[in-house]
Amino acid sequence: MPLLATPELELEVPKGASTVSHAVVAFRDRHSAVQEDELAVEEPLEIRLGGKSLAVTMRTPGHDADLVAGFLLSERVIERADDLDVIAHYAGPDDDPRVGNVINVLLNHPGPAIHQRLHRSFFTSSACGLCGKTSLDAIDMDLRPVTGDLTLSLDTLYALGPSLTAAQTTFERTGGLHAAALFDATGRLVALREDVGRHNAVDKVVGHMLQAGKLPLDRHILMVSGRASFEIMQKALAARIPVVAAISAPSSLAVQFALANGMTLIGFLRPRRLNVYTNAHRIRQSP
Amino acid sequence: MPLLATPELELEVPKGASTVSHAVVAFRDRHSAVQEDELAVEEPLEIRLGGKSLAVTMRTPGHDADLVAGFLLSERVIERADDLDVIAHYAGPDDDPRVGNVINVLLNHPGPAIHQRLHRSFFTSSACGLCGKTSLDAIDMDLRPVTGDLTLSLDTLYALGPSLTAAQTTFERTGGLHAAALFDATGRLVALREDVGRHNAVDKVVGHMLQAGKLPLDRHILMVSGRASFEIMQKALAARIPVVAAISAPSSLAVQFALANGMTLIGFLRPRRLNVYTNAHRIRQSP
Repeated sequence: MPLLATPELELEVPKGASTVSHAVVAFRDRHSAVQEDELAVEEPLEIRLGGKSLAVTMRTPGHDADLVAGFLLSERVIERADDLDVIAHYAGPDDDPRVGNVINVLLNHPGPAIHQRLHRSFFTSSACGLCGKTSLDAIDMDLRPVTGDLTLSLDTLYALGPSLTAAQTTFERTGGLHAAALFDATGRLVALREDVGRHNAVDKVVGHMLQAGKLPLDRHILMVSGRASFEIMQKALAARIPVVAAISAPSSLAVQFALANGMTLIGFLRPRRLNVYTNAHRIRQSP
Repeated sequence: MPLLATPELELEVPKGASTVSHAVVAFRDRHSAVQEDELAVEEPLEIRLGGKSLAVTMRTPGHDADLVAGFLLSERVIERADDLDVIAHYAGPDDDPRVGNVINVLLNHPGPAIHQRLHRSFFTSSACGLCGKTSLDAIDMDLRPVTGDLTLSLDTLYALGPSLTAAQTTFERTGGLHAAALFDATGRLVALREDVGRHNAVDKVVGHMLQAGKLPLDRHILMVSGRASFEIMQKALAARIPVVAAISAPSSLAVQFALANGMTLIGFLRPRRLNVYTNAHRIRQSP
């Protein structure tokens, strides 16, 4: 019953990179091998307007000024290029973590719309976990890492996908819903929720268990139908779920979050194959 | 050169439904037929805490109390079921649009964390277009419908997918990025951006064009690699883009938004096939 350790304990993302390489344990049927996987970079970008924090969005670095201009247009803060005076990255010493992830905007004609917005609201949080956070400091939720001795057999993990597919009904019809499912350590499906929003599906699963008095979920696995982002990992950790499995790819920040908090992160969970991105010691190759 | 009209001018979603049927014009190679398509319902849910608007999230109706409980846990507003006193839908007359889409929360122990949050922030918007909006009223951006006589040949639309795939590089490597692409009326690729966030990819494309002084984009097509949500349509409308094509399914609210604003919405854009959800009159079957 050999226990595998994930080869990397840290993932460092070079400033401005849009992809980053990370060593994973790739299971193919009964075989496993360490191989390099290319991750999409996910990093927070704080948008400051006139020196004040306006919003934080998780994004892939690159074309940040375009992102901010498009965002301000769709939020109706600006209407045309002329409305923008300056869009520039925060300049500071190279070792300042904000460098590259903070952008300053000055408007030529700060109109009534923006002032109206600035005074309208008093709370910035929302169901996407990060959207609406107004500064980088607000992202760190200060949760304790997961602990415990939960281990899972490879066969249990391989059975999750078919189990989810069998239980999922609406997705089959519309192709438009994300699913989140909670399994116990033997691979039994405990709860399944579908939603147009990935984070909502996770919130519904966790909220159901919370209201049933079943937290902490430290003997459970969270499975999501799409990709694993920072917010998914954060929601899992808030419920003390130690293992997250995604059908598709994890982001760089999901991997970093899992490493920092002792969570096992599995991606590309497909028939008889999966990649383990972090903390592979929880996976048993034999039953 | 027959012009097809989309058979439905309205889409009504029954209260609480998670899917809804909508008639689409289904093109298969050179043939077209009107057929029923099942859409995932997307509706706003306003979360009120102690009578004050806290957040609005776009979600699929159903298990709303679970959604709110999970959201409050992951935002660290609550820690356990005991912290919740009441989670209940707003009660009002049946014809009040808020019924079913507003939920009230009362806490047993409103702790310091929540008060800290309530006072910390002054602005609620974010790049996901809706997240952070604090009330249902804030969703309606009051944009004018698109106008103009743009039409597109079926062949032009069929060529978009291969054109996007040929230009897309990172996605192929990581499987973790969404793409948004802008095409002109002849199907020429004008801009392509990739991001971990779908909305970000659209913001980057639109922001690029805005800064280049190329708005309005009323002779262009926006293509997205995944699903079409309300926010995607809203961002397209802000840039005056009349046609949005998605590789995957649109949500009910994307369809409703497109109907209300004269936009053509195409889904399931695949090799030699596509579904037109709204305003099919812009599509020419012959060159």
